[in-house]
Amino acid sequence: MKPLKSRRERVAQKEGLSPGTLVHVGERKTETVRITVVDYDENNFLEKEVAAVEDCFPFRDTATVTWINIDGVHDPLIVEKLGTHFGLHPLIQEDIMNTTQRPKLEDMGETLYIVARMLEFDETAVEVGTDQLSLIVGRNFIISFQERPGDEFGPVRERIRRGKGRIRKAGPDYLAYALLDAVVDHYFVILERLGERVELLEDELVSDPKKETLHEIHILKREMIFLRKSVWPLREVVAGLERSDSELMQESTNVFLRDLYDHTIQVIDNVETFRDMLSGMLETYLSSISNRMNEVMKVLTIISTIFIPLTFIAGIYGMNFENIPEVHWRLGYFAVLGLMIVIGLIMAAFFKRKKWF
Amino acid sequence: MKPLKSRRERVAQKEGLSPGTLVHVGERKTETVRITVVDYDENNFLEKEVAAVEDCFPFRDTATVTWINIDGVHDPLIVEKLGTHFGLHPLIQEDIMNTTQRPKLEDMGETLYIVARMLEFDETAVEVGTDQLSLIVGRNFIISFQERPGDEFGPVRERIRRGKGRIRKAGPDYLAYALLDAVVDHYFVILERLGERVELLEDELVSDPKKETLHEIHILKREMIFLRKSVWPLREVVAGLERSDSELMQESTNVFLRDLYDHTIQVIDNVETFRDMLSGMLETYLSSISNRMNEVMKVLTIISTIFIPLTFIAGIYGMNFENIPEVHWRLGYFAVLGLMIVIGLIMAAFFKRKKWF
Amino acid sequence: MKPLKSRRERVAQKEGLSPGTLVHVGERKTETVRITVVDYDENNFLEKEVAAVEDCFPFRDTATVTWINIDGVHDPLIVEKLGTHFGLHPLIQEDIMNTTQRPKLEDMGETLYIVARMLEFDETAVEVGTDQLSLIVGRNFIISFQERPGDEFGPVRERIRRGKGRIRKAGPDYLAYALLDAVVDHYFVILERLGERVELLEDELVSDPKKETLHEIHILKREMIFLRKSVWPLREVVAGLERSDSELMQESTNVFLRDLYDHTIQVIDNVETFRDMLSGMLETYLSSISNRMNEVMKVLTIISTIFIPLTFIAGIYGMNFENIPEVHWRLGYFAVLGLMIVIGLIMAAFFKRKKWF
Amino acid sequence: MKPLKSRRERVAQKEGLSPGTLVHVGERKTETVRITVVDYDENNFLEKEVAAVEDCFPFRDTATVTWINIDGVHDPLIVEKLGTHFGLHPLIQEDIMNTTQRPKLEDMGETLYIVARMLEFDETAVEVGTDQLSLIVGRNFIISFQERPGDEFGPVRERIRRGKGRIRKAGPDYLAYALLDAVVDHYFVILERLGERVELLEDELVSDPKKETLHEIHILKREMIFLRKSVWPLREVVAGLERSDSELMQESTNVFLRDLYDHTIQVIDNVETFRDMLSGMLETYLSSISNRMNEVMKVLTIISTIFIPLTFIAGIYGMNFENIPEVHWRLGYFAVLGLMIVIGLIMAAFFKRKKWF
Amino acid sequence: MKPLKSRRERVAQKEGLSPGTLVHVGERKTETVRITVVDYDENNFLEKEVAAVEDCFPFRDTATVTWINIDGVHDPLIVEKLGTHFGLHPLIQEDIMNTTQRPKLEDMGETLYIVARMLEFDETAVEVGTDQLSLIVGRNFIISFQERPGDEFGPVRERIRRGKGRIRKAGPDYLAYALLDAVVDHYFVILERLGERVELLEDELVSDPKKETLHEIHILKREMIFLRKSVWPLREVVAGLERSDSELMQESTNVFLRDLYDHTIQVIDNVETFRDMLSGMLETYLSSISNRMNEVMKVLTIISTIFIPLTFIAGIYGMNFENIPEVHWRLGYFAVLGLMIVIGLIMAAFFKRKKWF
Repeated sequence: MKPLKSRRERVAQKEGLSPGTLVHVGERKTETVRITVVDYDENNFLEKEVAAVEDCFPFRDTATVTWINIDGVHDPLIVEKLGTHFGLHPLIQEDIMNTTQRPKLEDMGETLYIVARMLEFDETAVEVGTDQLSLIVGRNFIISFQERPGDEFGPVRERIRRGKGRIRKAGPDYLAYALLDAVVDHYFVILERLGERVELLEDELVSDPKKETLHEIHILKREMIFLRKSVWPLREVVAGLERSDSELMQESTNVFLRDLYDHTIQVIDNVETFRDMLSGMLETYLSSISNRMNEVMKVLTIISTIFIPLTFIAGIYGMNFENIPEVHWRLGYFAVLGLMIVIGLIMAAFFKRKKWF
Repeated sequence: MKPLKSRRERVAQKEGLSPGTLVHVGERKTETVRITVVDYDENNFLEKEVAAVEDCFPFRDTATVTWINIDGVHDPLIVEKLGTHFGLHPLIQEDIMNTTQRPKLEDMGETLYIVARMLEFDETAVEVGTDQLSLIVGRNFIISFQERPGDEFGPVRERIRRGKGRIRKAGPDYLAYALLDAVVDHYFVILERLGERVELLEDELVSDPKKETLHEIHILKREMIFLRKSVWPLREVVAGLERSDSELMQESTNVFLRDLYDHTIQVIDNVETFRDMLSGMLETYLSSISNRMNEVMKVLTIISTIFIPLTFIAGIYGMNFENIPEVHWRLGYFAVLGLMIVIGLIMAAFFKRKKWF
Repeated sequence: MKPLKSRRERVAQKEGLSPGTLVHVGERKTETVRITVVDYDENNFLEKEVAAVEDCFPFRDTATVTWINIDGVHDPLIVEKLGTHFGLHPLIQEDIMNTTQRPKLEDMGETLYIVARMLEFDETAVEVGTDQLSLIVGRNFIISFQERPGDEFGPVRERIRRGKGRIRKAGPDYLAYALLDAVVDHYFVILERLGERVELLEDELVSDPKKETLHEIHILKREMIFLRKSVWPLREVVAGLERSDSELMQESTNVFLRDLYDHTIQVIDNVETFRDMLSGMLETYLSSISNRMNEVMKVLTIISTIFIPLTFIAGIYGMNFENIPEVHWRLGYFAVLGLMIVIGLIMAAFFKRKKWF
Repeated sequence: MKPLKSRRERVAQKEGLSPGTLVHVGERKTETVRITVVDYDENNFLEKEVAAVEDCFPFRDTATVTWINIDGVHDPLIVEKLGTHFGLHPLIQEDIMNTTQRPKLEDMGETLYIVARMLEFDETAVEVGTDQLSLIVGRNFIISFQERPGDEFGPVRERIRRGKGRIRKAGPDYLAYALLDAVVDHYFVILERLGERVELLEDELVSDPKKETLHEIHILKREMIFLRKSVWPLREVVAGLERSDSELMQESTNVFLRDLYDHTIQVIDNVETFRDMLSGMLETYLSSISNRMNEVMKVLTIISTIFIPLTFIAGIYGMNFENIPEVHWRLGYFAVLGLMIVIGLIMAAFFKRKKWF
Repeated sequence: MKPLKSRRERVAQKEGLSPGTLVHVGERKTETVRITVVDYDENNFLEKEVAAVEDCFPFRDTATVTWINIDGVHDPLIVEKLGTHFGLHPLIQEDIMNTTQRPKLEDMGETLYIVARMLEFDETAVEVGTDQLSLIVGRNFIISFQERPGDEFGPVRERIRRGKGRIRKAGPDYLAYALLDAVVDHYFVILERLGERVELLEDELVSDPKKETLHEIHILKREMIFLRKSVWPLREVVAGLERSDSELMQESTNVFLRDLYDHTIQVIDNVETFRDMLSGMLETYLSSISNRMNEVMKVLTIISTIFIPLTFIAGIYGMNFENIPEVHWRLGYFAVLGLMIVIGLIMAAFFKRKKWF
């Protein structure tokens, strides 16, 4: 599982460093960091990609809502410059670069710091990958940090561009909600994919359980453990945002956060349901193995039990004793054959009565 | 399981949409939406089916209690019109159309929004189906949304019609209670059906456990997981209604809500009991398979252990050596037969003493 | 299990009825309802059986403590008459007749309504039966409803009759405590019976585990689930009585309720302990089956592994080839016999070293 | 298990008795009750055994701290006399004699009533026995009731005698702490003994798992269940003492109680760890049985699969058909022997490749 | 496991001692105790090793922050001297020497007492060892007690020496945080090592599960139980420090403690994930054993079922009856051979259809 590997780097690099030291923890990256700025209010809209991090500093003090999105957190310089200009605590800067955070909410007074995990399902490897999303919510700006380009925020951008709906009229707190909502919505996509696999497995389990079935149940269970780890703490983050008495959160956003909260609970509910189902499937798989073993054993036992005594009888008359009276009987052979058939039938009847076949 | 399938549609349709966008999530439906209005107070009673949604707008401002029931939530136009006229928040409208909600209670000030799940047991498929019931409780009206025609509210309607009991004298909060009570009462019907199956399975388990028994235990366990998911959150909804300080809830209804709360706990209790029983049955099933395997193995072992040595002896005297003294003895054959019988009896005695048969 | 059966009737009868409608839910009964009245204070004592329910109405307003006991709740008329006279809420009347209630405490202002479950252990069926006890505690009266005649209150009555101890000096709250205490005391009797069976099973498990052992473990586990369901909520009832700020509960009774609370916890503790023990016993049973299977397999394998190669050798010299040199050797037969013995001994040594016997 | 047996007596004797009736519940005892008094303050010290219970009454009103220890609670007279003189509620007196109490704390205003369970490990029977310790803490006295002579309080007495440390300067609350501390300290001794057995079993499990191993795991698990039942409630007792606002508890004792609380948690922690380890060991045991079965089966299968076909070939040439050409070949016998060897080697290679040996 | 062994010594030595008596509990040590002092503020820095414990007394009253580190807690004299001079409660002194403490936080007014457990992973024995770290946080000093030389605090010392970062400007509370942070950072190193082993095992499980695999899963599970025991209570310690209203904790340190709290939760999360994964792996292992058994049985059954009947036929014609007509047929031999081949093929087809190979 990837999280383990990234954690490994962390340790090698981080142990013994002063808290607040900026070191990137995660998969090595060399791509340049991409910074985009979206600046809007009800009437104005501006979207551009900036070359240098300093280019987005002017937006801090505008009255409009500014969303600065950074794809790539492996460059300490960029994080530090932004951090200094926007007043982020060194520990926050450190957390942004350390991509193994649990979802959490930190109220820093002037800003809110939110960590969530964006999930991606790799269909071929049957593995749920994870990207860390760090959100800094300020009075009139949001900074979002992602590990790599390519996100689930396209529709949110589109809604801002078209200026439809509530988003252009609302503040950065609503934008934060919209981004988290997009993240949670994508959880449903992943759940659905996993759900399809669970269903497939369930069918397979009934029709033709194979060794691979077991392996896949095991893998899906592991991914559910992993999913759960990402989603559970998010629930508390959303609840924390709703309960928050920070001035940055407007009263009117609460109803949306409550809705988002319901969605995270629904995700958790589904994850737990899948876990219960997978556990049930494992039990069924084990039982069906036992059942099949029983079948195999019955076949062996029936055949052996019928033929071993018969072979013994044949063995008797295959002995070379000079004086075996039966051997000289005219119908001895047929008598023995008859005896064998009778014994065989009795045996078969015995198994029939025991309902073995 | 159906819930998964409906969720699948959701994802395809909903990801990236602005919150509050009305999109129906659930099984595709083409039937026309059926709207019925029941309007009553202690002395008056009116019941009619209206053709257009606008026809029920006048009832909003009457002093009488109005119950508007909508069968079918797949038409965004109807939901939106009602929503606008009765002042429902766009998120509520969205939730009404998205039929994969968990039971929940939302206090919107002017109205209360309640989601519950109506269950239906499909006897042949051994599957519990689910319909979403959305209740909007206002000062003097209730709007109920159901996914399809055909509900468990017949008796409630009858009680309103006949004007007997408390219902005609009480307000919309009591009607909301009555509807939820009908939903929970139906849970008992389903529990009873499932309970019958559990009992049947238990008998089968003792008398004649089959492969199908395992399969049914598995299915029933899954349905219990599903049931639990629908009922657990309802408990909190009812508790929330009782504790609510909304002006829409009258003090006198609390004793009924407390009663309803007891019923939901009873349902949960029973579901948990069934789950425990099914787990126990699975364990018993597995043990009985092992037991039977033991039986099979014993038969095989007894027969093999008795006859294999005997066959070996027969084999010895079937060898063609020129010089086998015993072969020429007059009673050699009978001696060997005797020896075989003795050996066989010793073996049998050995197994008898080991209590193998 | 009986509770399922009684619940079945409930559904058929109750679904769709107005809340507060009096319908008996439980096993059909035809016996006449028996009503007894015990009226006492420190100096006076009266005990009589009344023919009609109206005969006990006068006792409501006496200053003495009155205990009205009704055996049989299947007659709605009696319940309703009592209810009307003593001011019971229709929902309470309904709960009295619906004998599938969970233990609960309801503070109705003028009266307290307590539900507890009296248990009876049917030794032959290994089944714990249950009767619903409804207690109405008023200012100077108690009404107790039981499903059938024959209860555990004999000693309480005796204590009232003899006028010894606290009971004649105290109020109805103390009587309620005394009755609940009698109920809980009887739980210990049942626990003890079940405990004896658990111990017996444990001995059997060590000495000679049989198929029936498994079945009994299963049954006892089921009864424990059932017991737990009856006792758990009672704990909260007693705690609720102690914490209650109702004027009906006197301060001086609290120390007794605390004692009762300790007893219910002790019962729960024991039930949980038994459950844990039964789970452990099931595991042990399964292991011992596996162990025995191992034994069976070892016998089969030893015998087969020793004799199959020997039989093969015998088979070789049983072939009818014209040119088998060994056959013509003078001591060929004895050489082969010797070879067989050597091989057999080697095999036996092999198994000996593997500690198979 | 003994607790079951003592509970059995309880039921037979107690059901139906008035609360507060003094009846000894526990193992029958006939020894005379032994009463010792220790009376001390910073400067004075007196220790004596008294013949009659009345002899210790004078100590109630002295300013010095008095510790009255009673070995044996089966004599209602003694308990009642003490109870009357020292003002113990009848229910407390009853609880003292009923030796099946859970650990609990009861604040009776003038006195505190503490129940704890002293454990004793019977090495040969692998059974943890239990004695009930009842402590009555008054303003300047402590009464301790034990079921039988011989306790873990020797060192505490010694400390009082020698007058070293805090104990002679502190009040009865500190003495109560010291006694409970001695009880908990002894839990560690028992845990250590059980721990040794767990370690031994673990070694046995790796080197040579036997049927007895399973049985001992089962027994140890049962004892852990029992231990847990005794220790868990004690935690709350100690926490209750610390939080208590009783005038009998001095502020300065709290730091000691906190220390004691840590110890009880440590005991619980260890019990839970042992339970987890034993569960793991059971799983390992079961797996190793399965593993061994596999070994057995492989031996059987290899031998059978190699020799059964060979025996069949030998059988073919053992047939007595007149016209079997091969039989008359000069090298037929050797050709068949060669064929058999080839087949045998192929089979062996097949199993080798499958890594069966 | 080591903790058991050290506990054993405890018992032998400690039972019956007065609380606060200083007795070392842990592995016997004879090395001399090493005491180092680091004294610093923003401008000054002093680091030295002192020979006698008295040498560090003068530092108590300096205004600079002093960190006294003691390697070795087996010498009661040193602990007592320090305790007396720095005002440590006798119970704290006792806890320092008793190295089997759970992590805990004790607010003693003038000082805070913190216990944590430093872990060390012994790669060869696959065992997590544990050292107790006791921290005394005073107004301007910290005393740290470790069981043996060699710790994880090198980097912290280095940061103090170089005077970079926050540490030289902050007070002893920040130093306490830094030390605990170093301890928790090392947990990640251990988790990573264990994680590598879990991954290795998982690969082994898929490719080639062996008996040793089972044994290692068992060992890793046990170590996880142990790890959990050390980490869980630390969470509460850190939370307690953050919530603490002690004057010793500065407001500005809270944000760091919150960060540390997140880290401990992350550790716990990972431990739980590993436990779940190991449980899953055990299930998979068991299933794969069953699967392999099935394979073995199938081979045996196929071979036996095909050849036993054929051998029986051969046996028939090996009988020595005088009158067996077939024997004299010219093509009898070939007819029987043909019959055998047909029967063999039918059997093979049967197993093919059953998908046995």
